[in-house]
Amino acid sequence: MKISAFGEIMMRLTPPEYLMLEQTKELRMDFTGTGVNILSNLSHFGCETSLITNLPDNRLGEAAKASVRQLGISDKWIGQEGNHIGSYFAEMGYGPRPTQVTYQNRHSSSFGVSDASAYAFDDFLKETDLVHICGISLSLTDQTRAAAFSLAEKAHEQGKKICFDFNFRPSLNKNNEAAFMREQYERILPYCDIVFGSQRDLTDLLNMSADESLDSTEQFKKLAEEFMANYDIEQFAGTFRTRQEDNYYLSGFLFSTSGYELAEPREIINLDRIGAGDGYAAGVLLGYAENWPADKTVAFATANGVLAHTIQGDVPLTTRKQVEHIMNHPTVDLIR
Amino acid sequence: MKISAFGEIMMRLTPPEYLMLEQTKELRMDFTGTGVNILSNLSHFGCETSLITNLPDNRLGEAAKASVRQLGISDKWIGQEGNHIGSYFAEMGYGPRPTQVTYQNRHSSSFGVSDASAYAFDDFLKETDLVHICGISLSLTDQTRAAAFSLAEKAHEQGKKICFDFNFRPSLNKNNEAAFMREQYERILPYCDIVFGSQRDLTDLLNMSADESLDSTEQFKKLAEEFMANYDIEQFAGTFRTRQEDNYYLSGFLFSTSGYELAEPREIINLDRIGAGDGYAAGVLLGYAENWPADKTVAFATANGVLAHTIQGDVPLTTRKQVEHIMNHPTVDLIR
Amino acid sequence: MKISAFGEIMMRLTPPEYLMLEQTKELRMDFTGTGVNILSNLSHFGCETSLITNLPDNRLGEAAKASVRQLGISDKWIGQEGNHIGSYFAEMGYGPRPTQVTYQNRHSSSFGVSDASAYAFDDFLKETDLVHICGISLSLTDQTRAAAFSLAEKAHEQGKKICFDFNFRPSLNKNNEAAFMREQYERILPYCDIVFGSQRDLTDLLNMSADESLDSTEQFKKLAEEFMANYDIEQFAGTFRTRQEDNYYLSGFLFSTSGYELAEPREIINLDRIGAGDGYAAGVLLGYAENWPADKTVAFATANGVLAHTIQGDVPLTTRKQVEHIMNHPTVDLIR
Amino acid sequence: MKISAFGEIMMRLTPPEYLMLEQTKELRMDFTGTGVNILSNLSHFGCETSLITNLPDNRLGEAAKASVRQLGISDKWIGQEGNHIGSYFAEMGYGPRPTQVTYQNRHSSSFGVSDASAYAFDDFLKETDLVHICGISLSLTDQTRAAAFSLAEKAHEQGKKICFDFNFRPSLNKNNEAAFMREQYERILPYCDIVFGSQRDLTDLLNMSADESLDSTEQFKKLAEEFMANYDIEQFAGTFRTRQEDNYYLSGFLFSTSGYELAEPREIINLDRIGAGDGYAAGVLLGYAENWPADKTVAFATANGVLAHTIQGDVPLTTRKQVEHIMNHPTVDLIR
Amino acid sequence: MKISAFGEIMMRLTPPEYLMLEQTKELRMDFTGTGVNILSNLSHFGCETSLITNLPDNRLGEAAKASVRQLGISDKWIGQEGNHIGSYFAEMGYGPRPTQVTYQNRHSSSFGVSDASAYAFDDFLKETDLVHICGISLSLTDQTRAAAFSLAEKAHEQGKKICFDFNFRPSLNKNNEAAFMREQYERILPYCDIVFGSQRDLTDLLNMSADESLDSTEQFKKLAEEFMANYDIEQFAGTFRTRQEDNYYLSGFLFSTSGYELAEPREIINLDRIGAGDGYAAGVLLGYAENWPADKTVAFATANGVLAHTIQGDVPLTTRKQVEHIMNHPTVDLIR
Amino acid sequence: MKISAFGEIMMRLTPPEYLMLEQTKELRMDFTGTGVNILSNLSHFGCETSLITNLPDNRLGEAAKASVRQLGISDKWIGQEGNHIGSYFAEMGYGPRPTQVTYQNRHSSSFGVSDASAYAFDDFLKETDLVHICGISLSLTDQTRAAAFSLAEKAHEQGKKICFDFNFRPSLNKNNEAAFMREQYERILPYCDIVFGSQRDLTDLLNMSADESLDSTEQFKKLAEEFMANYDIEQFAGTFRTRQEDNYYLSGFLFSTSGYELAEPREIINLDRIGAGDGYAAGVLLGYAENWPADKTVAFATANGVLAHTIQGDVPLTTRKQVEHIMNHPTVDLIR
Repeated sequence: MKISAFGEIMMRLTPPEYLMLEQTKELRMDFTGTGVNILSNLSHFGCETSLITNLPDNRLGEAAKASVRQLGISDKWIGQEGNHIGSYFAEMGYGPRPTQVTYQNRHSSSFGVSDASAYAFDDFLKETDLVHICGISLSLTDQTRAAAFSLAEKAHEQGKKICFDFNFRPSLNKNNEAAFMREQYERILPYCDIVFGSQRDLTDLLNMSADESLDSTEQFKKLAEEFMANYDIEQFAGTFRTRQEDNYYLSGFLFSTSGYELAEPREIINLDRIGAGDGYAAGVLLGYAENWPADKTVAFATANGVLAHTIQGDVPLTTRKQVEHIMNHPTVDLIR
Repeated sequence: MKISAFGEIMMRLTPPEYLMLEQTKELRMDFTGTGVNILSNLSHFGCETSLITNLPDNRLGEAAKASVRQLGISDKWIGQEGNHIGSYFAEMGYGPRPTQVTYQNRHSSSFGVSDASAYAFDDFLKETDLVHICGISLSLTDQTRAAAFSLAEKAHEQGKKICFDFNFRPSLNKNNEAAFMREQYERILPYCDIVFGSQRDLTDLLNMSADESLDSTEQFKKLAEEFMANYDIEQFAGTFRTRQEDNYYLSGFLFSTSGYELAEPREIINLDRIGAGDGYAAGVLLGYAENWPADKTVAFATANGVLAHTIQGDVPLTTRKQVEHIMNHPTVDLIR
Repeated sequence: MKISAFGEIMMRLTPPEYLMLEQTKELRMDFTGTGVNILSNLSHFGCETSLITNLPDNRLGEAAKASVRQLGISDKWIGQEGNHIGSYFAEMGYGPRPTQVTYQNRHSSSFGVSDASAYAFDDFLKETDLVHICGISLSLTDQTRAAAFSLAEKAHEQGKKICFDFNFRPSLNKNNEAAFMREQYERILPYCDIVFGSQRDLTDLLNMSADESLDSTEQFKKLAEEFMANYDIEQFAGTFRTRQEDNYYLSGFLFSTSGYELAEPREIINLDRIGAGDGYAAGVLLGYAENWPADKTVAFATANGVLAHTIQGDVPLTTRKQVEHIMNHPTVDLIR
Repeated sequence: MKISAFGEIMMRLTPPEYLMLEQTKELRMDFTGTGVNILSNLSHFGCETSLITNLPDNRLGEAAKASVRQLGISDKWIGQEGNHIGSYFAEMGYGPRPTQVTYQNRHSSSFGVSDASAYAFDDFLKETDLVHICGISLSLTDQTRAAAFSLAEKAHEQGKKICFDFNFRPSLNKNNEAAFMREQYERILPYCDIVFGSQRDLTDLLNMSADESLDSTEQFKKLAEEFMANYDIEQFAGTFRTRQEDNYYLSGFLFSTSGYELAEPREIINLDRIGAGDGYAAGVLLGYAENWPADKTVAFATANGVLAHTIQGDVPLTTRKQVEHIMNHPTVDLIR
Repeated sequence: MKISAFGEIMMRLTPPEYLMLEQTKELRMDFTGTGVNILSNLSHFGCETSLITNLPDNRLGEAAKASVRQLGISDKWIGQEGNHIGSYFAEMGYGPRPTQVTYQNRHSSSFGVSDASAYAFDDFLKETDLVHICGISLSLTDQTRAAAFSLAEKAHEQGKKICFDFNFRPSLNKNNEAAFMREQYERILPYCDIVFGSQRDLTDLLNMSADESLDSTEQFKKLAEEFMANYDIEQFAGTFRTRQEDNYYLSGFLFSTSGYELAEPREIINLDRIGAGDGYAAGVLLGYAENWPADKTVAFATANGVLAHTIQGDVPLTTRKQVEHIMNHPTVDLIR
Repeated sequence: MKISAFGEIMMRLTPPEYLMLEQTKELRMDFTGTGVNILSNLSHFGCETSLITNLPDNRLGEAAKASVRQLGISDKWIGQEGNHIGSYFAEMGYGPRPTQVTYQNRHSSSFGVSDASAYAFDDFLKETDLVHICGISLSLTDQTRAAAFSLAEKAHEQGKKICFDFNFRPSLNKNNEAAFMREQYERILPYCDIVFGSQRDLTDLLNMSADESLDSTEQFKKLAEEFMANYDIEQFAGTFRTRQEDNYYLSGFLFSTSGYELAEPREIINLDRIGAGDGYAAGVLLGYAENWPADKTVAFATANGVLAHTIQGDVPLTTRKQVEHIMNHPTVDLIR
């Protein structure tokens, strides 16, 4: 199954060794983004992947493309438009000090100024079986919203699978009213086959109401089933992060034709949590592409999500061998 | 309130990534010192700050001044005297391996060889409301001791507030007898308004005796009140570090006109504990400068002290926004 | 003489060791800009300096301010406006490979979106004797142009000296016609006292015509005198870069009340030429502030300009001692 | 034209800042090799390229493939065989101190142990128009020699163009007699269309004799024409490195259907000369692929070869834009 | 007591800050190996130590020797043979992500190709009292096995003490049958005086059977006593790693003439566990060399083993002072 | 011939990539000193070497010793005394910008506070054939001067060869009058066999007068012969640095029993000139130790001195093979 994604390539700049920006002049430069993260991980799992996006026609655009290729993603559909790369600075936290992300230049980025006319969606879709669309495109700019709708429609028409990720960030939506945002999500969901999200997305964003007479699990199941029925969704997936004493645990869920599946929780040891959610998504998509039973999918995807927390940077680079290793030998801490 | 400090600027040299000196040729250079730490933090809280000290008239002195300015502290009162900067190497520990500090050249440093005549204390005091004097100046050299006494006297005369920090380090006082050191502290305390210290400073250094019939808290309160009465101290503050199973907790105390206040303990996750105590002091001084109620002060100062443990280097660089963030949203580990 | 400047603070990101962006993930971050460069240098010469500009109210703005303070420039007049810092990536060239600069985000930077209303020019001018205005502000955005005009008018009214720098970069002016740009320059020049520029600025930008019957030096002198008369300019200065065999030489000129002065050429050995022109300007302004004879000024400023080519980054950090050293001991290559 | 290559991927490890191995613990890791170098450069010129080679099935093999993809080369035909990557350490020289290369492990590398049976040459050739074979494969091991012959035969049969590179390194051939090596070269040359080499390759390796009655240029032309006639070579190319006083100059030559063409010499400023010859080869191949006139080809290829000397590492990463820039604007040292 | 070792010097290459190979181009180079680790630690404890091994006659061999000398080990007996250094890449794990070691080139290393004839064992043994032989030499190549046997025989003849380390790594023995390996171990053990190993070495490798009627401790004791009696072993030592909730603990055991001694467990905080076992061994050998009582030995060696987990790289560099410090002041986390 | 030296081990701290101290927080740490430099180079030439000096009993002393061992020098005679290491910061210059050295703490260093009683000179001398004494010890402190005299006397008595190095630095002698310094040199010279110096040392320091009727070479020869006769010197050596157009050249001289020998000048390309003089000295001592003819000695030593200019840091690390290589193949810039 050829898997592709539509989304922004961002430049991430990170000071070394938990230093804050005032404390250093050294930064590590990476290229990242939800689409990049998921496709890179799938590519490391052996899938053929491709990203459709735009970059500036300059040295930064060239460096970004080189980085995407290194991650194992085809750069064939990356076009040139606009003058900037959206970027962000990540001051890594430690213990109670939270990681602090500062964005630069997202709205006027090459991706932000590109609408549907800036992409060859028709040709692109011919070469893909499943396309991932990041929900951030609904909030970023009018152009990215229009492009996302156009792509979703075309993909749906051509019978391609669409994977959609709520990825709703209130901070990116200060200028949009809740009602407006709900409308956008309601408009795209009918085209979607696989959706990543949480209960809060259903209740707070889509305004669905939970049946408070039920216990929390049943409440969630009912909500999810209703949501999937409303929009004809094939799979709905996401993660819970729970706390026990001082420790945090991750477990992934998956609603599919075989019902509700919840993974055994795995402890999170956190080196860099940015992009860790994309590790879970990549695992679910691999299971989907290879038709795994739901229990195998959530176990693999959860293990992968936990590994993603232990990797510097946003991009999960795990191979199947690594994920299977921690599933089969959870206490081995040295492989040679 | 204009806040200033009298104290040494030291050069700190730290190997990267927990390496020991034999393992690397790379060192990170920072400039630090109790005065630098507290003022830098206050400056990040929005206060106007100024350091009075001496540096050599060479490239190291220039680099040190540049660094102090970067931290937000005025270098107007930094003079030139002597030929050396006191320095120390910090081999960062990990788990059971303690951090190892090796000093170079403290007694013959520019600060160490400067007595009262090497400073323009009178002009300096005209531009400050509160001056912090570090107790290390009482032990370092005869010259620093003389300068500290002179400054304390002048400040007291001019009606400026004096903040004093016991900072008694037996390792710096191998050549001085206990009785001699007690005398020095007893001589400076009558000039002081705010004092940072611990029960041990009162009993072991000042030779005060605890009333063993009381429980430990009452014992400490009685001691502290007696101490404050003896020397006419307005505020006496410090921290407790307690252990619960494998975890350590910090809570700050403050004796003031409104009695004894103790903060809720906060867990310490330790990236670099050197200078962390100065984070608590800066929080208390901010509360003092802005007339906060004691409970607000100890809560803020404790949170700040905990954050200071999560920052590389001695110098706490927290802003109000950051401190308030961990107070209000203690579980958020990613801000964007 | 208190010297100040109006101009942008940019973030510069540079790969190490002449690497290109595709070859590394490590970048060095500096803060720079014509105003920053000149003031920092003047501050290292012992002048009191201050920059008026705007930065975003975020971690990058804070880091930029810290860096400006480190350079010795007061951050008192740096306000908060907008969301971005203009930035550029410098891939350092080597031999025949030119240095390649890629800009990000200049038009929507905090400086780019700030017009006159975003600055407290009146209060600011009370605390300065001479203000430097960078010509780039005439081309960047409508807002920066408006702010520059407003500042020039007010400074002129209050009897402050104005230093202006043509700094005309065709690449920043693709959307403006030549006639439009000429008008802008003609509008600001009557307010100016000291101007930095070249013959090309007079002929190509201002459309003045050279008297081709004269030899090149006399041609230039006549043009410059005419220019100074037209706009009532007190000093007009700049540099020539000449080539002899494989070597390049720099010599600075200065038109002033004492006529035309040209410095002895000095060989350029180039480590990083970005910002090197600001080294010459800083030298001229020091001479102006201290009323030096023109020959002393051009000799010092040329030596300083040559030194600026040997310093990594845009910002000349030379001290008087260093400049005088290479003037007096040009063959000494090791000082200890 | 789809261009491919057969050759080894090596790991290069380089100490920073001209340090020698004893002086540092820091190394920069790159992946390189004649095929990698030429294809990467062609890929940066916009060609579709592909490398056929083998790597170990381990983390180093994965990292090497990622690096090759980043350089713009397809990794589709990179197989898994053996357990090692050939590697070398480059201690960069300075002035009279030569660069010192130390090899590790070339003969037992994945490439070294792979013979023809380890490659899918038939399928591979279907997707290429021109394949480059590095002469080092004739000397490295019996397996690489056998693989090179097999590939050359098959490519010739299928009517694909073959580019061959003498690349004769006596140090790699200590165990082979001259006669044996000549035989190998004589065996592969009849399959070749484009050959890179020098006069010394023709005389010392192939044992051809120069007509000493002619001047050196005519001598060389006669030798080259004879060589091309003998083996039915379409193009024969290479470079001369000449010295004038303290400076070195590069000029490339090309024998083709339009006769002998020699480029204007360009000065070499040397940052890292390893792999610089591959820059000239890439330029010639681009000219070949696009049917350029010979004078355009040698001028472009020579400029590219000179640029390759200014780039860290073996891999020339120049774009057409960069090469054309130094051809059209040789004195511009800063582009913005 | 002069202590020496026979074993390989390997080059270790480690990416910084927990990065994986694909994520960085920066590597840290160290030289390591069981013999290097143990001797370096003993040398830091004040012993005179010497390593006998072979290295290539090239820049890597020179760098390796320099590194060994730095660690305090004499390089007098390091000869030149072969062309390669065995090397490995260590991608440091984090939390559930295990550390991944990738070997290069071990079998064809200088050590791997050297048999007994390549060493001056007789002269070497004259200058040593105790020689450590690493069990890896029994599995690596036929040559290393032969060299190990020859050395063990000669040392035994000359009445030197022999310390042997099972160090059985199934991954290095894929081509050898279990029976074959058992035979090799059975052949060397009669020469040995001190042996490091585990219960699994006795049962799985030597095929001894445990008395299942006993509890686990008694079972182990009986096995160990039988083993020591069989081969006339003076001391048998090793470590247990146990888990309590989320924490791991280390405790060392020692069978000697005074019976079985087991150390108090100490918590392991793991920065780099590679080579940590050699820390325990070094502690036991120090106790042996200085005739300590068994309880002192296991306590010191266990503390040292725990410290070895907190040190970057394989080589424990602890001094007596450091080990004693964490034994006497386990809660002090900052020494100054 | 066993060669040893008496002199200080200093810590050198150097910013990377020609940065100045204000521009970076990263420093490279090396250990250096005239004795260290010469012995390290001799050790790389295959000689057995040993340094006698003192270091503090702390982590810096341990790191310094480890570094000295790495360089190939025995640390057997390095004692513990005092608390500090003398250190210096080297801001590397570029082109016209000179390298700037800033010293810290030399007079109170472990070496500076150690007099003769702090060394076991008698035992030390038994194990050496030739001892190098650095002239800096005559100016540094009263203690170092006393130690140097004591060592020179004892060595002379025991019939050991003494090599002495004028190394007169006016900047270290601000407090000593010229007459006083002359006396010290006159006192030590009668013990010396080999002396390194220049004409200026003879005229300015020793007050000898040149015969102005002779041409400059003859003048120098006459002075040198007189000097050698006065103090019964066996060899007197040093270097000339001459300039031709923009280039600098080095040529070494040697006065010995076979008269005056001057090497062919070699061009200097300067990466780091600190310590480069010690490269020439090491070459001369090697020739002395191996009884080379004078012409071979000056040629080798000059080539070595030129190489020393191309090596980062003070310490020349050249091997015989490297020196011979540039003598035999001066135009080869890549060895593989």
